[in-house]
Amino acid sequence: MIDLRSDTVTKPDEPMRQAALEADVGDDVYEEDPTVIELESRAADLVGTEAALYVPTGTMGNQVAARVHTEHGQEVLADRSSHVVKYELGGLAQHAGLQVRVLDTERGVPTPEQVEAGYVEEDLHRPGTGLLCLENTHNARGGLAIAPEEISAAADAARDRGVPVHLDGARVFNAATALDVPVTELTGPVDSVMFCLSKGLGAPVGSMLAGSQAFIDRARRTRKLFGGGMRQVGVLAGPGLRALENVDDLETDHENARYLAAGLDEIETLSVQEPETNIVLADVTETGLDVEGVLDRLRGVGVLATPFGPTTIRFCTHRDVDREAVETALERVEEALA
Amino acid sequence: MIDLRSDTVTKPDEPMRQAALEADVGDDVYEEDPTVIELESRAADLVGTEAALYVPTGTMGNQVAARVHTEHGQEVLADRSSHVVKYELGGLAQHAGLQVRVLDTERGVPTPEQVEAGYVEEDLHRPGTGLLCLENTHNARGGLAIAPEEISAAADAARDRGVPVHLDGARVFNAATALDVPVTELTGPVDSVMFCLSKGLGAPVGSMLAGSQAFIDRARRTRKLFGGGMRQVGVLAGPGLRALENVDDLETDHENARYLAAGLDEIETLSVQEPETNIVLADVTETGLDVEGVLDRLRGVGVLATPFGPTTIRFCTHRDVDREAVETALERVEEALA
Amino acid sequence: MIDLRSDTVTKPDEPMRQAALEADVGDDVYEEDPTVIELESRAADLVGTEAALYVPTGTMGNQVAARVHTEHGQEVLADRSSHVVKYELGGLAQHAGLQVRVLDTERGVPTPEQVEAGYVEEDLHRPGTGLLCLENTHNARGGLAIAPEEISAAADAARDRGVPVHLDGARVFNAATALDVPVTELTGPVDSVMFCLSKGLGAPVGSMLAGSQAFIDRARRTRKLFGGGMRQVGVLAGPGLRALENVDDLETDHENARYLAAGLDEIETLSVQEPETNIVLADVTETGLDVEGVLDRLRGVGVLATPFGPTTIRFCTHRDVDREAVETALERVEEALA
Amino acid sequence: MIDLRSDTVTKPDEPMRQAALEADVGDDVYEEDPTVIELESRAADLVGTEAALYVPTGTMGNQVAARVHTEHGQEVLADRSSHVVKYELGGLAQHAGLQVRVLDTERGVPTPEQVEAGYVEEDLHRPGTGLLCLENTHNARGGLAIAPEEISAAADAARDRGVPVHLDGARVFNAATALDVPVTELTGPVDSVMFCLSKGLGAPVGSMLAGSQAFIDRARRTRKLFGGGMRQVGVLAGPGLRALENVDDLETDHENARYLAAGLDEIETLSVQEPETNIVLADVTETGLDVEGVLDRLRGVGVLATPFGPTTIRFCTHRDVDREAVETALERVEEALA
Repeated sequence: MIDLRSDTVTKPDEPMRQAALEADVGDDVYEEDPTVIELESRAADLVGTEAALYVPTGTMGNQVAARVHTEHGQEVLADRSSHVVKYELGGLAQHAGLQVRVLDTERGVPTPEQVEAGYVEEDLHRPGTGLLCLENTHNARGGLAIAPEEISAAADAARDRGVPVHLDGARVFNAATALDVPVTELTGPVDSVMFCLSKGLGAPVGSMLAGSQAFIDRARRTRKLFGGGMRQVGVLAGPGLRALENVDDLETDHENARYLAAGLDEIETLSVQEPETNIVLADVTETGLDVEGVLDRLRGVGVLATPFGPTTIRFCTHRDVDREAVETALERVEEALA
Repeated sequence: MIDLRSDTVTKPDEPMRQAALEADVGDDVYEEDPTVIELESRAADLVGTEAALYVPTGTMGNQVAARVHTEHGQEVLADRSSHVVKYELGGLAQHAGLQVRVLDTERGVPTPEQVEAGYVEEDLHRPGTGLLCLENTHNARGGLAIAPEEISAAADAARDRGVPVHLDGARVFNAATALDVPVTELTGPVDSVMFCLSKGLGAPVGSMLAGSQAFIDRARRTRKLFGGGMRQVGVLAGPGLRALENVDDLETDHENARYLAAGLDEIETLSVQEPETNIVLADVTETGLDVEGVLDRLRGVGVLATPFGPTTIRFCTHRDVDREAVETALERVEEALA
Repeated sequence: MIDLRSDTVTKPDEPMRQAALEADVGDDVYEEDPTVIELESRAADLVGTEAALYVPTGTMGNQVAARVHTEHGQEVLADRSSHVVKYELGGLAQHAGLQVRVLDTERGVPTPEQVEAGYVEEDLHRPGTGLLCLENTHNARGGLAIAPEEISAAADAARDRGVPVHLDGARVFNAATALDVPVTELTGPVDSVMFCLSKGLGAPVGSMLAGSQAFIDRARRTRKLFGGGMRQVGVLAGPGLRALENVDDLETDHENARYLAAGLDEIETLSVQEPETNIVLADVTETGLDVEGVLDRLRGVGVLATPFGPTTIRFCTHRDVDREAVETALERVEEALA
Repeated sequence: MIDLRSDTVTKPDEPMRQAALEADVGDDVYEEDPTVIELESRAADLVGTEAALYVPTGTMGNQVAARVHTEHGQEVLADRSSHVVKYELGGLAQHAGLQVRVLDTERGVPTPEQVEAGYVEEDLHRPGTGLLCLENTHNARGGLAIAPEEISAAADAARDRGVPVHLDGARVFNAATALDVPVTELTGPVDSVMFCLSKGLGAPVGSMLAGSQAFIDRARRTRKLFGGGMRQVGVLAGPGLRALENVDDLETDHENARYLAAGLDEIETLSVQEPETNIVLADVTETGLDVEGVLDRLRGVGVLATPFGPTTIRFCTHRDVDREAVETALERVEEALA
């Protein structure tokens, strides 16, 4: 099986496992795990914030951030297809009583005008706007890499109105790689950022939430409320530290994605755009099959992809699929849809 | 002052006050207020449901309905500009943990295709769709009267997927009047409906929530949770019963609205569409003033209207403003904007 | 039927109804109802606060107060048998995410030591204490009148720790009457107080929430969230103003309660304590019947009372039951339990 | 330093680390991690349920269970000093809108009579009882081991009324060891149980939630909502499986605790009861120091313990502190308090 469903399927490699074996650990609820402390410090440095916090998942990182930034009952501005709106079980409403005001954006990031138009001043009838959520790369839009000027334009529009900005940067290093900019240009304009150690960087478990020290202090408490206060979590932080060294490898995933996309687009019944990062969306309308039908065929020849809307499937390249595997996958897809 | 801000400003007339004076009352928490019982029975009959419940406001009626129909953490489908989304302080998220999936509709009511596209099957990542909210007349769209076939098309699309439908019918009698159909054609396709006794019907306070007996039983308990379980509320139900006799007068409000709209549209700097019911939206862009500037001028000559977006003001006709007053208002507006 | 179930059953008298008939009204959502404004001003003066707000029920007043005073997720200290804990559908948790830390008190009011022991400093594992709720008179304890020094001792213990104090004063005028103190001695030590215009004062509907101007400003918005923002509510505020003139009549209810209690206690199978205010609790163990059995017998002879625990029934005197009626009720109970 | 603060400080031993190194992993969100699947299956077998779910913390396990068992807005019965009430940040109210009705129990477990008295039938004013939470061993009571008959008596009283029962069994294997009964005698009477792999069993991270298949299916989704859906979590499940082999070592911790307690009790200024499991509570009143003063002194001589109330400190034995270390600790404490 060549598994192109998601970069979440990456398995920890030998050095990572070794890092778990050798990590110096302590009880992180008491803030005594040296490996976690090192990872949090390194993560904060990387994205240019005062502090950072290890969280078991990106979803927890996003939801904790939303809860900490807002008052119960405010509004959140977010792109309609953002992960925090679509794939987190309505957590914004459930965990923080927040009403989402979705924005229909062109590339997954709102324009300053859209932020301005979506902003609501609190009054007798209306909850005030309490948060802007951005996402980079933008998963549902096929891994679009949002540029620093797009991020800062949207973020400034919010912050000028006193509204904090959280960046769901699950794949923000993919964005920085694709745009060839330091990641701090993408994280500098926002108040908090979550990024994943799992996914493309290859750690088995975990994400980082970064922001000001005051924000992280409150986030630590909210993480406990959510049941995310783990103990000798250095066994995960060790691999996490190792994952941070994999940032440079993301370019390979992007090259493989472009190669895959070009090859898929040559298949008559598929329509594929050139990807900006490691996510490839293929329109399967012309196959005469529905999405599940196509996925079944691919599974039959040993290729796994993911349903992604009524006529779209998603392929995702990652460090466990090298160029040769991509080539094989392409041949198999061709054969399956012939 | 000629007050055209809203039909909520209508004051109870003499017969209504007399009804308050004479109402036979009891403790409605014990369900012993005969006037309330009569009003609830009459209201249910009017809109064709098994049962109905008196609530102090339309907002409480809508929020109680949303809470009763759904499980905590589901999604609600609603037009982006609907009252329940814009003007109820994010109550859907706060009271019931519901995430709103807004639909951008042409006339305030979604097409069946939009309902179908917005419907989400519950899975590991996604909250399922738990409710469709409709609104008729649609306030933010300038009092549009949504036709029976529009209502039933949207409602059927939801109910076919097991999703209940609530109608915010704050002004549903205005809709029935404008469309010249029995109100039951508008309420028949839905599971519950809220309509206001205040607003155009002229009662000082109160709205009705109507639906099946099982729904109303649960709504009665949820009303208590919201602090809406009042005592000798027959003093309001009496005027409420009297208000139900005012349905036939709504046509006069609509005629006055059309007259007002036509007159306003003749003013060079205003742009006004013909209204379908009692709400008149005027675009003030050409006045060279902003909305507050226009409203100040009108106030200066004794006419009150309401801000309604960045370049729009709203006038609302009602039973306390007769044709002569509308004529006077028109003259004054003309003078103010000359 | 002689209805001694509750003072909530009092029906508005002729002057009150007349007040509804004649009240000058306006749209209270716009804060333009002169009668409401007068009532709110009078109520604030009465209990010695900067401002007050009309609410349709005492439950709404209590729940709005709890929401405004606290941050989502804090703890509330309250007597185990207080109304806000027992009879408001768990609203503290539902509306404000508050955990109740109940205190087992001797007379319904905690000692300063109990407040101190119950106080929790916010830390990584524990929600901080955000509110102390008191109740006066204390309904579940048989209408006990809590003295100024008891109130202020408990309130000071909380406020010294930065914890605000809300008083559920549904029957606080009964307490002031029984203790023969100005009501401000009971409301002075707390941050907010709710008192009912219905119940003993006889208004058909409504309660007042009083506190600082800043508190009331936020409460007004939260009232809207709960669906309590009514329109021409002067028709209720008029009777409400009239109800404030009934404070002096409460002593009569108390005398009737003492008379009733003494009479009931003479019945061999009943055990009754002398009441402090208008609530009489009778232990029915010796009747050989269960509570429902006793209530059925009383209903059979035309007397209504309320179940109040496994072996207790409650009688409540009020302005619609005069001494003669109490005498008749006594005769009937005697006959029923003979 | 001899760390007796908590059994949560145990560090993974070499075989556990090796298990992390060698674990066969997959993406557990897709339910494809074979080591997690094996652990969940083994855990379910151990406690005698149909299914089980890996959760990162005991807090998440308890909170997910409470959410799944109840409807938003019900009541929970729990001992006043239980972990779920005291140390989970009011999560019951925050995550599930639940009001806690605390019970003041003798040994941390309510009697059937207390359950019966605390049970509330849902009505117009009262939230119904939706859950009974038990805890075994009972941490705040000094690690009391609750016997099978105590568990089943309380659980049956709840279940007879249709109320499900969750057992916070963070240290349930300590209880089974102390009572010398199969753990299934303790878990059999309840609907769900959470137990920790960390704490005495020594895993670095993680707990198991066990119950019926239907319960676990819903819990899996709720875990995602809480941000607990991790990826290649086999790296934790491997050590978790290894931890299950440590159950037999708990008796050693208990022996050490008894030895420690006896030694501490010989110190003139300490008063210590014989422990039932691995938790030793020492009353420090006679030292003339406050709790922080005592802990400082102990820290000064290289012994760590935990504050546990106004005059109590807690010692906790575990697999990283052997008999020799306990002896040394005793000597040091003696010296420090001399």
